[in-house]
Amino acid sequence: MTRRQLSLNAFIYPAGHHEAAWRHPTSAAERIYDAAYYQEIARTAEAGTLDAVFFADGPALQGDITHNAVGRLEPITLLTAIAAVTERIGLIATASTTYYEPYNLARLFGSLDHISGGRAGWNIVTTGNDAAAANFGLDAHPTHAERYARAREFVDAVVALWDSWEDDAVVLDRAAGIYADRSKIHEIGHAGRYVRVKGPFNQPRPPQGHPVLVQAGASNDGRAFAGRYAEAIFTAHQRLADAQAFYADIKQRAARMGRRPEHVKILPGISPFIAGTEADARALEREFNELTVPAYGLRQLERMTGTALGHLDLDGPVPVELFADAGDVTDNGRSRLQVVAGIVERERPTVRGLLHRLAGARGHRVFAGTPEQVADTIEDWFTSGAADGFNVMPPYYPGGLEVFVDTVVPILRERGLFRSEYTGRTLRDHFGLPRPENRFAGRTEVAAV
Amino acid sequence: MTRRQLSLNAFIYPAGHHEAAWRHPTSAAERIYDAAYYQEIARTAEAGTLDAVFFADGPALQGDITHNAVGRLEPITLLTAIAAVTERIGLIATASTTYYEPYNLARLFGSLDHISGGRAGWNIVTTGNDAAAANFGLDAHPTHAERYARAREFVDAVVALWDSWEDDAVVLDRAAGIYADRSKIHEIGHAGRYVRVKGPFNQPRPPQGHPVLVQAGASNDGRAFAGRYAEAIFTAHQRLADAQAFYADIKQRAARMGRRPEHVKILPGISPFIAGTEADARALEREFNELTVPAYGLRQLERMTGTALGHLDLDGPVPVELFADAGDVTDNGRSRLQVVAGIVERERPTVRGLLHRLAGARGHRVFAGTPEQVADTIEDWFTSGAADGFNVMPPYYPGGLEVFVDTVVPILRERGLFRSEYTGRTLRDHFGLPRPENRFAGRTEVAAV
Ligand SMILES: Cc1cc2nc3c(=O)[nH]c(=O)nc-3n(C[C@H](O)[C@H](O)[C@H](O)COP(=O)(O)O)c2cc1C
Ligand SMILES: Cc1cc2nc3c(=O)[nH]c(=O)nc-3n(C[C@H](O)[C@H](O)[C@H](O)COP(=O)(O)O)c2cc1C
Repeated sequence: MTRRQLSLNAFIYPAGHHEAAWRHPTSAAERIYDAAYYQEIARTAEAGTLDAVFFADGPALQGDITHNAVGRLEPITLLTAIAAVTERIGLIATASTTYYEPYNLARLFGSLDHISGGRAGWNIVTTGNDAAAANFGLDAHPTHAERYARAREFVDAVVALWDSWEDDAVVLDRAAGIYADRSKIHEIGHAGRYVRVKGPFNQPRPPQGHPVLVQAGASNDGRAFAGRYAEAIFTAHQRLADAQAFYADIKQRAARMGRRPEHVKILPGISPFIAGTEADARALEREFNELTVPAYGLRQLERMTGTALGHLDLDGPVPVELFADAGDVTDNGRSRLQVVAGIVERERPTVRGLLHRLAGARGHRVFAGTPEQVADTIEDWFTSGAADGFNVMPPYYPGGLEVFVDTVVPILRERGLFRSEYTGRTLRDHFGLPRPENRFAGRTEVAAV
Repeated sequence: MTRRQLSLNAFIYPAGHHEAAWRHPTSAAERIYDAAYYQEIARTAEAGTLDAVFFADGPALQGDITHNAVGRLEPITLLTAIAAVTERIGLIATASTTYYEPYNLARLFGSLDHISGGRAGWNIVTTGNDAAAANFGLDAHPTHAERYARAREFVDAVVALWDSWEDDAVVLDRAAGIYADRSKIHEIGHAGRYVRVKGPFNQPRPPQGHPVLVQAGASNDGRAFAGRYAEAIFTAHQRLADAQAFYADIKQRAARMGRRPEHVKILPGISPFIAGTEADARALEREFNELTVPAYGLRQLERMTGTALGHLDLDGPVPVELFADAGDVTDNGRSRLQVVAGIVERERPTVRGLLHRLAGARGHRVFAGTPEQVADTIEDWFTSGAADGFNVMPPYYPGGLEVFVDTVVPILRERGLFRSEYTGRTLRDHFGLPRPENRFAGRTEVAAV
């Protein structure tokens, strides 16, 4: 029997996840709009037999660009360029159900799956940033509940479009002049409140059946959504106990939906500073923290708390009242705020100290240590019901991923926790997820195409 | 002085432009959802130093899939995969202003331009096929006038988004902690009737400033649009005189808009059957025509004319009344019908004869001849005020493009009409188009980002 295997995903962030990475001499901040840079990063991840690379996304300029490299290329096109120069690694892009049309997005992900030979994944988000609304002719960002209501219809429609052509719809009978069996190409007739799509789709079913559905919401609605649809979940936890509670909750929700819990991979974020000694790793983290621009971090914290903070003394304590209404972890859209409130409550940091705690990965867990120590904490969370793998968030790129692949991955392999070579070709293969059946298979009504 | 140079664009169509290409033994119909197939085709076009490759598109399943290979991958992703394995060739994708959101589309084309190092072009269409409406929650396809009204606003917004970052907005001053000069990143504040986009954009200005704007509408509204925005125009003409009239009209319209006529490249379609002798070329065309499925062609003609035609005798004459209301060439959305009406009036074909005439390229000009003869007609149209180059539409792929590149391109080079190697790197370079100035350059208001 082989041991249960870790899933490892490289979360690519332009110069790195640390907000000051772009200032560090080892970062490649000059190259963040250059496809070759990301192709090289993806090849590094593939050399480490990682499951996938992943890009976040939002249809607006987010964050204070004066002090951070917050511009972005569009991730589906970028992953297509990566697909062309890699063979095995999965390719996960974020896209918004609030600000896309399902027919367009189904085509983009379907094509990415065809082009990559079955390696596409979609991180389904409803978009938290309300600046997006004004880029789409809306007076206001739809409410959290409305966004999730639309998201459910949206995903139902997209998945139905992917099923629109049965796997054997194309006949290609040259002699008879029959290209496709049109009784195997179906309208989907999705008529919801937010989304109406008739179909049929205009491309064959993707190689994976459905590109892998990934999700990253943490609210009650988000978790319900995840329990129903998600095949992999990105999540942010500082502490083992919180991660365990989240893990148990999601697995239960999936089971209640009649799904097999092992078909939902839960991947907390970890942002590792890695060096030969723990002291050197901590020094490296400090080096990055000292490059932060306090005005930038304060602005991020202001957006998170919704309060003006310009008056705070950087070296004074964080006022605990700031987080008085952080509320329950399942509050709408405020899960990250709750993570931060926990840090403040436990650690009573100065304002500067809190900014440094958040600078690494926006509330995700930052860990400084030796390769052994990083492998230990990964194994610990993996074997104690907190994670099925990790969303690896290198504080700086490309070096931070290289050191992870070169030093941590070999240890995980030695321990029998992680593959030494790819055994499959698709992202579903890597994650151990089945290829979904086609809802239309076997139905015989003739579609009017 | 070098002679005025031809622009040549390879219009890629899955198995080929001839509707029976997928049945022909030389076609690669098995590979039409395989990115490698299109990458090979693009490399052939690049070996021939063509200006660009181009994909048509529509967000619906169009045409009778029982008898033709009408499924499609999404073209922007496909061109991104092509970008990754080519160096110089331009990459033009069709996308609809009726069924996209400007912020999303600006990002996709902007990213394609970044990823390809300045090789992107956008064939702007309003989508003729009314089946698309039902895939986007609409009860009806918007009217022709409304589609063009939205198209104008849409393109204004997209182009403004591409200008949102001035070329020197990114400062990347590590020491000072300044990533960008935010006074050089602008909101666009587009508030129209159909399109409202605030901005700013979330990526740097594309390498070309603006990806090249291509257009293919032929109605009055379409021509007005082209005169204002288009830098290249795809068009369908059977006869030199019609092409000359169109050419003169568009160049005049551009001049009236204050543009330089040579900055609008007019590219009629030509679908060449090429062989060592004219007789062999004609025999090859016949071979393809004999593979057509009459039910398919009739159905296409029914959609074009809006009349049921199932009762017609294939070997009887085409009833001229069918085209009685084809109207003027500038009638809305009916320009192709007018081309067909011209064929019927001049040639008085049988129904089968007409279906064969249209089978080659849906009303575009089909030409069977030797390489010399193909080069002659290209030179003739080019030097007599009918064309600045051609949209080359091989009847079958990949062979039909290979024979064009191997036999016709060398003749055009010998005659000094076409480049022997690329002299530039971007699609604008190939077409001889200037890089547009940024509308915001020099303005100093501080954008609220
Ligand atoms: C690893 C990770 C990546 C995320 N990436 C994105 C993203 O790219 N775009 C986005 O709008 N939200 C992103 N989110 C935010 C979530 O989608 C979600 O909005 C947030 O966790 C709040 O949860 P809720 O939406 O269920 O209230 C991400 C969250 C996590 C944990
Ligand atoms: C070479 C060529 C390619 C075209 N490609 C498309 C296409 O991909 N998608 C589309 O909806 N229309 C396409 N069209 C149609 C035109 O955009 C336009 O709708 C048609 O010529 C009718 O003109 P009008 O829209 O101005 O009435 C194409 C036309 C030509 C000549």
